Amino acid sequence: MTKTRKICIKSLVKTPIKDGFYMPAEFQKQEATWLGFPSNPGTFRLTPAQKVIQAVADIISKYQKVNIVVQPSMWEHACDVFKNCKNIFVVEVNTNDNWLRDIAPTFLIKNVNKDIYLRSVGWKFNGWGNPKEIEHNLDALTALKISNSLSIPFYNKNDFVCEGGSFSVDGQGTLITTEQCLLNHRNKNLSKKQINTILSNYLNLTQIIWIPHGVANDTDTMGHVDNICVFVGVGKVILTWPDDCGTEQCVDKEQEKWSLAALHVLENTPDANGNKIKVYKMPHPPILTYSKEEIKTLPVTDGSFVRKANVRLAASHVNLIITNDVVVVPTFNCSTDSRALKTMSEIFPDKKIVGVYAREIVLGGGNIHCMSQQQPYSTKT
Amino acid sequence: MTKTRKICIKSLVKTPIKDGFYMPAEFQKQEATWLGFPSNPGTFRLTPAQKVIQAVADIISKYQKVNIVVQPSMWEHACDVFKNCKNIFVVEVNTNDNWLRDIAPTFLIKNVNKDIYLRSVGWKFNGWGNPKEIEHNLDALTALKISNSLSIPFYNKNDFVCEGGSFSVDGQGTLITTEQCLLNHRNKNLSKKQINTILSNYLNLTQIIWIPHGVANDTDTMGHVDNICVFVGVGKVILTWPDDCGTEQCVDKEQEKWSLAALHVLENTPDANGNKIKVYKMPHPPILTYSKEEIKTLPVTDGSFVRKANVRLAASHVNLIITNDVVVVPTFNCSTDSRALKTMSEIFPDKKIVGVYAREIVLGGGNIHCMSQQQPYSTKT
Repeated sequence: MTKTRKICIKSLVKTPIKDGFYMPAEFQKQEATWLGFPSNPGTFRLTPAQKVIQAVADIISKYQKVNIVVQPSMWEHACDVFKNCKNIFVVEVNTNDNWLRDIAPTFLIKNVNKDIYLRSVGWKFNGWGNPKEIEHNLDALTALKISNSLSIPFYNKNDFVCEGGSFSVDGQGTLITTEQCLLNHRNKNLSKKQINTILSNYLNLTQIIWIPHGVANDTDTMGHVDNICVFVGVGKVILTWPDDCGTEQCVDKEQEKWSLAALHVLENTPDANGNKIKVYKMPHPPILTYSKEEIKTLPVTDGSFVRKANVRLAASHVNLIITNDVVVVPTFNCSTDSRALKTMSEIFPDKKIVGVYAREIVLGGGNIHCMSQQQPYSTKT
Repeated sequence: MTKTRKICIKSLVKTPIKDGFYMPAEFQKQEATWLGFPSNPGTFRLTPAQKVIQAVADIISKYQKVNIVVQPSMWEHACDVFKNCKNIFVVEVNTNDNWLRDIAPTFLIKNVNKDIYLRSVGWKFNGWGNPKEIEHNLDALTALKISNSLSIPFYNKNDFVCEGGSFSVDGQGTLITTEQCLLNHRNKNLSKKQINTILSNYLNLTQIIWIPHGVANDTDTMGHVDNICVFVGVGKVILTWPDDCGTEQCVDKEQEKWSLAALHVLENTPDANGNKIKVYKMPHPPILTYSKEEIKTLPVTDGSFVRKANVRLAASHVNLIITNDVVVVPTFNCSTDSRALKTMSEIFPDKKIVGVYAREIVLGGGNIHCMSQQQPYSTKT
């Protein structure tokens, strides 16, 4: 960490809100999708994990540009993997891990007449609030590196611990986050009010909605909202919802608790436009756990989270990727797969809804949305 | 080299000429200047060499974007150096050396209605025809890496040894190169006619002008044209010209020979438009050599060219950088400095002409143009 802090990173002086920049929603027009390519052998079983991302990239790249971010050790291999793909660009970045959602910059835009300008913000990344547990000094610099590779001005908010998975926005001034993630764990010295001010200044917000908790047993990220509840339109969110939630028949009591608590907040809080938010209930997968076989073949290295057999996976269909023409939904070969796809078809009747079997990414502690970052459409940099 | 060749690099199938793309001249409108930051301790005395590039970047960035390409070992330091510079973006790339002109892609554009599309071509880089002498496996991949970071389609011409310093174009179909560089040394299996065809197909040309030789003792590049003669406008070139060239009083007989030979060709060959080329004589510096003191402090490592005291430097004012608003001219604290600047002022009365003392870069075997690559203005990628 000392090494990271010594760097004098150039930063814009004002805040995005003062400069008129805001974070657009994922469902707004995109320029490109950035995807992390599993390259860290301490996190993934590389070959099957790479095949998941390859499947995601193949689908999205049929319709828009995909930038694949790869560690040097895997760059040549990734070039080979994607050599026949027209819209895919393999970009080498020296990272520790591959969770692009959390280490890439958060992109901001500003409309000026007919032009759309692009900037970015980088947060303090310290390994999801676990600075001592895992290596993250290179990940902490990735936002600036990607921003620089695009030659765009950068806001350096490196006194606030936060990741892209910590929030979901509607592009109209509303943000949803969880108390588990941003309030209790990462920024213990900051009050909710202070955090509201920071998020408002850097993402240009007028309404911040705090739900209490992320999905059950999301131990790596400690409550990322993008696994439990995300915006899918202005005034529309999907919320992960275990079968029979709110009834005695519900067998997933832990998830039931957090889904009910989130619903209560969402149903009683207007968005930035003053409107009631429509909540779509997204079927939550049955309880999935690490198998003994998986634990045997999962890597164990210094600087990685330790995995154990029979421990619950933080699997959720909500951790999906929305692009201009396609929604990629993680599936788990389980009873909720087809219903999750159907839910998204109803929300996005004009987009192609594609399921990708994503268990291999979930074994690494995240999911496909955690491996992605959308770059909004812009005309000027 | 084996490692380099194994990579399956994605490439566009057709040639640029068939796709309607061409290489614009350096004096056409630019989007950005790319600069290599001295990071290879086997080539440069790093601190003073970095100060030269810093001076170049400072001037250019007052008017347009500058992307600084840095090896990982120096990325944090470069961020610190440029932290107060508004238009400068420090981009990390795993390279061997820092000669951006020769390892960055050659950018191509195509005009379609009101839009300008951007693509790039990468040549086979094998250390200026010296594949065994110096390390270059990472340099050989840099064109693709930079192209991918811009998400632009790439033409992979990796069966033809060539570098950005091997040619100068007018953007109207004319290219100048030297026989010493492209014909004799790098591609021994190819005839002049075959090389003409390759260059024409990849840069979109109708007239290729071969001058015999580069400047005196340009031993590293073996005859790069950008050290002896470059286009400064349509139908206009500058040619390095030792004092009293063509008379008995000329003391630099070696350079005199190559300047006279080049002049003979240039005066007797029309450009692609069928017009006679106007030759501006650029004063050639007096004979400069490595000092004993410099040799003592210059690095000696495996995989670098060996330097010796009293050996002639390949110093030339022609190795300058043309940008939208500024021309940066290398100077050497010698009698020709002010005349070189004056010559450029006459050619570009509307641009700012700035001299930068560049000896420290010349000690590494090149000059400031060799450290740069222009990215043409484009509206679409």
